[in-house]
Amino acid sequence: MPTVFITRRERFSAAHKLTRADWTAEKNMAVFGKCSNPNWHGHNYELWVTVKGEPSAETGFVADLSLIGGIIKERVIDLVDHKNIDMDVPFMKGKFSSTENLAVAFWNELATPINALGCTLHCVKLQETENNSVEYYGN
Amino acid sequence: MPTVFITRRERFSAAHKLTRADWTAEKNMAVFGKCSNPNWHGHNYELWVTVKGEPSAETGFVADLSLIGGIIKERVIDLVDHKNIDMDVPFMKGKFSSTENLAVAFWNELATPINALGCTLHCVKLQETENNSVEYYGN
Amino acid sequence: MPTVFITRRERFSAAHKLTRADWTAEKNMAVFGKCSNPNWHGHNYELWVTVKGEPSAETGFVADLSLIGGIIKERVIDLVDHKNIDMDVPFMKGKFSSTENLAVAFWNELATPINALGCTLHCVKLQETENNSVEYYGN
Amino acid sequence: MPTVFITRRERFSAAHKLTRADWTAEKNMAVFGKCSNPNWHGHNYELWVTVKGEPSAETGFVADLSLIGGIIKERVIDLVDHKNIDMDVPFMKGKFSSTENLAVAFWNELATPINALGCTLHCVKLQETENNSVEYYGN
Amino acid sequence: MPTVFITRRERFSAAHKLTRADWTAEKNMAVFGKCSNPNWHGHNYELWVTVKGEPSAETGFVADLSLIGGIIKERVIDLVDHKNIDMDVPFMKGKFSSTENLAVAFWNELATPINALGCTLHCVKLQETENNSVEYYGN
Amino acid sequence: MPTVFITRRERFSAAHKLTRADWTAEKNMAVFGKCSNPNWHGHNYELWVTVKGEPSAETGFVADLSLIGGIIKERVIDLVDHKNIDMDVPFMKGKFSSTENLAVAFWNELATPINALGCTLHCVKLQETENNSVEYYGN
Repeated sequence: MPTVFITRRERFSAAHKLTRADWTAEKNMAVFGKCSNPNWHGHNYELWVTVKGEPSAETGFVADLSLIGGIIKERVIDLVDHKNIDMDVPFMKGKFSSTENLAVAFWNELATPINALGCTLHCVKLQETENNSVEYYGN
Repeated sequence: MPTVFITRRERFSAAHKLTRADWTAEKNMAVFGKCSNPNWHGHNYELWVTVKGEPSAETGFVADLSLIGGIIKERVIDLVDHKNIDMDVPFMKGKFSSTENLAVAFWNELATPINALGCTLHCVKLQETENNSVEYYGN
Repeated sequence: MPTVFITRRERFSAAHKLTRADWTAEKNMAVFGKCSNPNWHGHNYELWVTVKGEPSAETGFVADLSLIGGIIKERVIDLVDHKNIDMDVPFMKGKFSSTENLAVAFWNELATPINALGCTLHCVKLQETENNSVEYYGN
Repeated sequence: MPTVFITRRERFSAAHKLTRADWTAEKNMAVFGKCSNPNWHGHNYELWVTVKGEPSAETGFVADLSLIGGIIKERVIDLVDHKNIDMDVPFMKGKFSSTENLAVAFWNELATPINALGCTLHCVKLQETENNSVEYYGN
Repeated sequence: MPTVFITRRERFSAAHKLTRADWTAEKNMAVFGKCSNPNWHGHNYELWVTVKGEPSAETGFVADLSLIGGIIKERVIDLVDHKNIDMDVPFMKGKFSSTENLAVAFWNELATPINALGCTLHCVKLQETENNSVEYYGN
Repeated sequence: MPTVFITRRERFSAAHKLTRADWTAEKNMAVFGKCSNPNWHGHNYELWVTVKGEPSAETGFVADLSLIGGIIKERVIDLVDHKNIDMDVPFMKGKFSSTENLAVAFWNELATPINALGCTLHCVKLQETENNSVEYYGN
């Protein structure tokens, strides 16, 4: 049976900043530049979640993309959309909201419920702007 | 001589929220929904500025797009990019940061310096997300 | 007060064909080409609805885009999405499903409920493929 | 010699539905939702075909993309474009037109003629909507 | 009868530079910047041609977009695609290849044959890069 | 520690042609088609550079994307943007400017300075047109 990869895109809009509280404003600015502006900024993030598995002989689906979409919405989108990532998101508490860390955190939220569908989470891709994106494959 | 319209795209990432301080949290939620979440959210805004005029016989340009771009950068982008629109932007002080109001405010910042180049500001288009955008033609 | 134009994008996927029952298959093929293939084809249509008005002093909105979106969904998207335009859509019965005719029909469905919000329907833009689109301004 | 991957995009517009004839309408609706509407729907599919190989010292090409494009057109696009996938496409007869199954079927049509050019088919990626896509790597 | 606007997108890739032979290299660099580099540069141009008219009662078409596409191809694309605009294009001889001048020249090539179809050329939009574009409406 | 992939997009506009000086014009046309037109053509190239590594505990970054961007700009973009690839680019001298060869050459320019940041160059993806692209992974 063939192994096929299916990808679902979701989107969210959120505020964040890159500032370490244990650093001076000068050091934050030197390392993080305008991303450390104190009053937050924000992005329209695009999220692609890729799952792999064998298409079902009955439905032709690796997994029902509406179920995948529902898991992404419940576990990630509803918690981050129109929120402040640094203040409002339980799974980011105490973490630094670089795109890298966000992608890893999303993977950790998604892997168990997605794999419970009988397929395998393969990649979380997160785009912060049209010029910058991150991919995480779980290890 | 022909009249030609030229458009420059610029982008910025900013935080904002839609909340009236003179309304209860309940009324803000009823009117503005998740856009009124107290800890801000944000967007990758796309901005298209359209200018009209007659191409110069010497250069073929209605206006030098790098000058147009420089004006947009100095008067708008540098003030809003990686900022909080409601807290940090001088020309939005006391204004409500709907996309409509932002487009009108950008027009007001841009019209004088752009028209001083010998062309005419025609349209400010501002896209908040891939589903929502606003255009303003100056009246 | 400024007049501002706001645009909402919605999408739908539908089947249709371009075939006149009163023409021979040969004439249909000569005029409509592969669009007249008898067993239907389909598209991911993109729809942009533009509304104009004065931003409210209270909300900064020309109109609540979620209300606009709700009207588009109820009057258009729910009737055409994952449907056969030629067989399933009440407001297209007896009409030919060219993109031009679709845009005019969508306008006719949307103008009354959108204008009842206190703003004015300005443009219906419908894209059939990345190379082909249509705009209708109501007259 | 380096191994390089080259990708060609092609597009087609087609109708299909997801309905099992051996299921009731209710079960089809429960499993496939609006994709099971009886009168078909359709999509603008985007297809990316990736081929790998060593660039020729003479031409700098892994393979002539116009030859790759010609094979994709002859073996896939001409058979599915402006067609009904479930009724008109020889290589989909008796198969269920999930995006997964389509990608595998396209691979099976393309692998032999593409590999005969002296390069190796690496990936077939098929996008059904901007939110949903599938990749197949041949095993 | 409604007036509807239909738009066809075409693309081409071409080389050009912005240099006046009657200026010094220094003045060319001061005015045109890197666009005046002597050995040419190039772009993937995107061209949108918009035509207006009343949809035919018989076909639902303002004009057959394949005829419009054919005119654009014959009169413009075949002459500029994979060419040097400044050296190879008859209708640009002696003209300066600013995007403004190109859009006006394309209008002049297209207006007569398009209007002969019984519709009216409305707009030529030419995009040089994702940040820069030009529109011309014929006067 | 997780391994994460980060990608930076940059763009440039350049002229080139595909012509072998040791072939006749007829053979060049037979093999390279319109890409062999003698007076050059050009493209808006898009370049994605992917780097892998472990996010820093201190910054959350695999690497500072502004440093990555700076390297790409200094080593590649500044040398090819608004240039003629075949005439002006030192690292392409004596090489044939197929997209495949460009991607390999870019890798060779970028690998040393990027890897010196403590991360690892993973992929150079170069898109010539929206239909044609190339990826190189360094071997």
